[in-house]
Amino acid sequence: MNGAATNPDAHVFAYACAQVKKAMDITHELGGENYVFWGGREGYQSLSNTDLKKELDHYAQFLRMAADYKKKIGFKGTLLIEPKPREPMKHQYDFDVATTVGFLREYGLENDFKVNIECNHATLSGHSFEHEVRLASVNGSLGSIDANDGDMLVGWDLDRFNTSVHDTTAIMKILLETPGGIGTGGLNFDAKVRRESTDVEDLFIGHISSMDAFAKGLKNAAKIKEENIIDGLIAERYKSWDSEIGKQIESGKASFDDMVAWVQKHGEPTLRSAKQEKFESIYATYL
Amino acid sequence: MNGAATNPDAHVFAYACAQVKKAMDITHELGGENYVFWGGREGYQSLSNTDLKKELDHYAQFLRMAADYKKKIGFKGTLLIEPKPREPMKHQYDFDVATTVGFLREYGLENDFKVNIECNHATLSGHSFEHEVRLASVNGSLGSIDANDGDMLVGWDLDRFNTSVHDTTAIMKILLETPGGIGTGGLNFDAKVRRESTDVEDLFIGHISSMDAFAKGLKNAAKIKEENIIDGLIAERYKSWDSEIGKQIESGKASFDDMVAWVQKHGEPTLRSAKQEKFESIYATYL
Amino acid sequence: MNGAATNPDAHVFAYACAQVKKAMDITHELGGENYVFWGGREGYQSLSNTDLKKELDHYAQFLRMAADYKKKIGFKGTLLIEPKPREPMKHQYDFDVATTVGFLREYGLENDFKVNIECNHATLSGHSFEHEVRLASVNGSLGSIDANDGDMLVGWDLDRFNTSVHDTTAIMKILLETPGGIGTGGLNFDAKVRRESTDVEDLFIGHISSMDAFAKGLKNAAKIKEENIIDGLIAERYKSWDSEIGKQIESGKASFDDMVAWVQKHGEPTLRSAKQEKFESIYATYL
Amino acid sequence: MNGAATNPDAHVFAYACAQVKKAMDITHELGGENYVFWGGREGYQSLSNTDLKKELDHYAQFLRMAADYKKKIGFKGTLLIEPKPREPMKHQYDFDVATTVGFLREYGLENDFKVNIECNHATLSGHSFEHEVRLASVNGSLGSIDANDGDMLVGWDLDRFNTSVHDTTAIMKILLETPGGIGTGGLNFDAKVRRESTDVEDLFIGHISSMDAFAKGLKNAAKIKEENIIDGLIAERYKSWDSEIGKQIESGKASFDDMVAWVQKHGEPTLRSAKQEKFESIYATYL
Repeated sequence: MNGAATNPDAHVFAYACAQVKKAMDITHELGGENYVFWGGREGYQSLSNTDLKKELDHYAQFLRMAADYKKKIGFKGTLLIEPKPREPMKHQYDFDVATTVGFLREYGLENDFKVNIECNHATLSGHSFEHEVRLASVNGSLGSIDANDGDMLVGWDLDRFNTSVHDTTAIMKILLETPGGIGTGGLNFDAKVRRESTDVEDLFIGHISSMDAFAKGLKNAAKIKEENIIDGLIAERYKSWDSEIGKQIESGKASFDDMVAWVQKHGEPTLRSAKQEKFESIYATYL
Repeated sequence: MNGAATNPDAHVFAYACAQVKKAMDITHELGGENYVFWGGREGYQSLSNTDLKKELDHYAQFLRMAADYKKKIGFKGTLLIEPKPREPMKHQYDFDVATTVGFLREYGLENDFKVNIECNHATLSGHSFEHEVRLASVNGSLGSIDANDGDMLVGWDLDRFNTSVHDTTAIMKILLETPGGIGTGGLNFDAKVRRESTDVEDLFIGHISSMDAFAKGLKNAAKIKEENIIDGLIAERYKSWDSEIGKQIESGKASFDDMVAWVQKHGEPTLRSAKQEKFESIYATYL
Repeated sequence: MNGAATNPDAHVFAYACAQVKKAMDITHELGGENYVFWGGREGYQSLSNTDLKKELDHYAQFLRMAADYKKKIGFKGTLLIEPKPREPMKHQYDFDVATTVGFLREYGLENDFKVNIECNHATLSGHSFEHEVRLASVNGSLGSIDANDGDMLVGWDLDRFNTSVHDTTAIMKILLETPGGIGTGGLNFDAKVRRESTDVEDLFIGHISSMDAFAKGLKNAAKIKEENIIDGLIAERYKSWDSEIGKQIESGKASFDDMVAWVQKHGEPTLRSAKQEKFESIYATYL
Repeated sequence: MNGAATNPDAHVFAYACAQVKKAMDITHELGGENYVFWGGREGYQSLSNTDLKKELDHYAQFLRMAADYKKKIGFKGTLLIEPKPREPMKHQYDFDVATTVGFLREYGLENDFKVNIECNHATLSGHSFEHEVRLASVNGSLGSIDANDGDMLVGWDLDRFNTSVHDTTAIMKILLETPGGIGTGGLNFDAKVRRESTDVEDLFIGHISSMDAFAKGLKNAAKIKEENIIDGLIAERYKSWDSEIGKQIESGKASFDDMVAWVQKHGEPTLRSAKQEKFESIYATYL
């Protein structure tokens, strides 16, 4: 209840290690391809009684031991951390993708762990599902997806079946653009029928609706990529980076003084609309 | 409006560099001790038209050029980034302290930049003021503080004068615990009277109220540190980490197998309450 | 800035009346069919300096005077109040539809005013657009619609063009089910291109996208009503209310003692799933 | 799970009546002074399968039957409704005080029911604790208080012990200003130690801290009333309503034409600051 790897009591830490070791052994035995760390208790309820630095260090130590153990037993699956901002704790250490990736990098663990993104956790942390998946993708950390959904007006985890074709299309587009795709991961619903569901039929309908939504999303995304209209417009927006000055900046060879000289020669930039309405209306035609 | 260093147009990037160069020159000339990058436009309104990776790379490139220029002109002040989750953009790249520190580390800029924490930005990103300051402190990134406040029921930046002694005590305690304190930074109000204020008297009362709140917070924090009751109780909570097994884990020399052996010998951990009510009630006696 | 009809200063109240009188005169002269009261300043920034009861009474008095004046000049248009929870004030008196309708009823103004619902205001008050429109409809208070949209992760009013066919279908279904429809009201975008838009083309695209979304919503809603599958399933859910016991309860002739007697005879109710997954998946087939 | 009085099944409605009848009988037998209706399931999870109007009508019918039964058995206690916006449902019919009071008035039940305000429910509905209590007070509907607290960064009901003297002072001030005070109601903690508490000591500390906070709040409020500085300043802000024009407006005898005539004679109003900083800083001196 006060954390496993981040518990104030080293005894609990040790106990948690023993439990995770057992679970990893079994996963390995069964031919598992992924191992997810859901750190819902790795956080704090109050800063008043918490040594934040100590807990972060211990968390990193625990993950390092897990990565070492994985190598030791020859487990080839992917180790995944599942970001979640809060619930059950007030604040969890793997708040969102940016926090988690930054934490892994701080402790030199970025090559040993990827992230498992849950849509409903994304929105609880103040981000869109698409944002979290994109951020993991560009960081080379996209490991797996818990493909559920919440209610934007509700402040807790609903784990509903995601049926928004608007969102599934965006997610599938990112997967198509990620080198190696989602690797050993996949789309795990981590969804349930409502707590109030009492008919087994609900379970079928829930799964079917969400599977259909992701299938439709994949088709839409494939078509978007194929037709290349949206990506073409994006490339157009950024094309100045392919010019001489753009390349010079990106290469890391430009200085502030170079910029001043260039601007004195080329003057004020041109005002350009971001054309958001256009992008979004084209996107809508694919849904 | 579409970002400076993260603008799709390299021309704008160059122009921004020229502007920042000028501002840094002046700061240096005037003997400035800090230089704050408020990246309120470094973000996106929509992912549909945005190349996230490109923009993050450009942002890092810009900051690197700023750090280089600082060295070139011999400016000794601290470069600061001010995290803010959104407003005016839907999503900003320096969302919160964890995101900003992780970003700096990714691009190898963590020794060149610290953060300037604004209370109202903290709460807009889903964190307490105390959380953000503590996180910056344990990361060695605490540079300065914009000591204002917002309204927890309101979804935008109010920049009110902070008058919560509960909060100011917590912040001052962290400053007392941070090696080197707040360095060249300080407590900048970045607060204003309400937009509706029309009497000059309001300005005096606002400043006095908040200065008093921080002064009282400092006195409270000093007393808390001096009496050592709260820190003593925290140390008590974590004391098992000073035991043999605790030290072994912290030293990085323990493995999952070691943990299993130790647990088999020592059995189940003892259930311990986190005593949150006690910590918070003792804290309240200092306010 | 401190309210018009709810200003602490009676002079401002009087001044506001004079302004509104003029605007109503002109509206009447021009053949206006509606007159909207946007009470964005009718609220408070702080309870510490506010006499809530006095301000509510004055607001009602002002609305009564407006309704009287309307009759006096023979203006036949609809008087509308536009609920909004906050912004620019911390708390506004017409927080949402329920609050506004309750307020009108308290002061006997429910026959003189209807509501103008703005989608983005709905979500800022913690409700869905559909909820607010439905609530106004069942209260006989649906006057007009500001058909815009916001961003659920953003805490202020964006006034974007609404392009969600999911939402527009729901709204159009309610309009088809409201006796007399939307009366003299209509769908007013109250939307703007992004603040960052600088191309006139954006304006066209924004309007076209949203008009199309509402047009598609209307077609969908008409088909939903025509096929009667969803409404049929809803009727099925509530059919027990057409039974003898249901009618007796609805007629107001049943007492707790009657219920006890009936339950003793009929025993425990049957467990029934609400079939939410089914309803939502059928709804999705119309989009 | 799908509501009691608002269940789609009339059988459940009848069953709920029988249960409530029994509970009221026992309350009466035991000399109870209050009877609280916690309508946590009286709402909806989705509008897609819900007949909102029918459910609201049934809810009112149920409350009417309860009020009738109370009279029948001679129970003298107060019937209370406890507003709550959501959780467990997505949307509950007694969303907040304004919604609840408006609903009671719509169905002519305003003299039979008062409200029991829970602080944590207030903040979940987007209002301050003080706002909800004040609104109930000015509506003559303040029945009782569940004196707990939540965490403004957390989106669910925490039911913590309220230890904010800032808030308890505000609440106690309202109670002192409410004719008849809180009547048969009282301050019920409806709080619990954290779910993670395992020491019985936590229970004592939690209760003591909150009792102390409310006791201190009462003392502060009494002093505020006695010294009359804040109320004096509020009276000063609104004093124009005691002038001739103010009284004429409040009496309901003024028309828009009268206002025009008066303004033409008296000209523009004077700009006055609301002095929020001053009010709040004086208030802080009492804490």
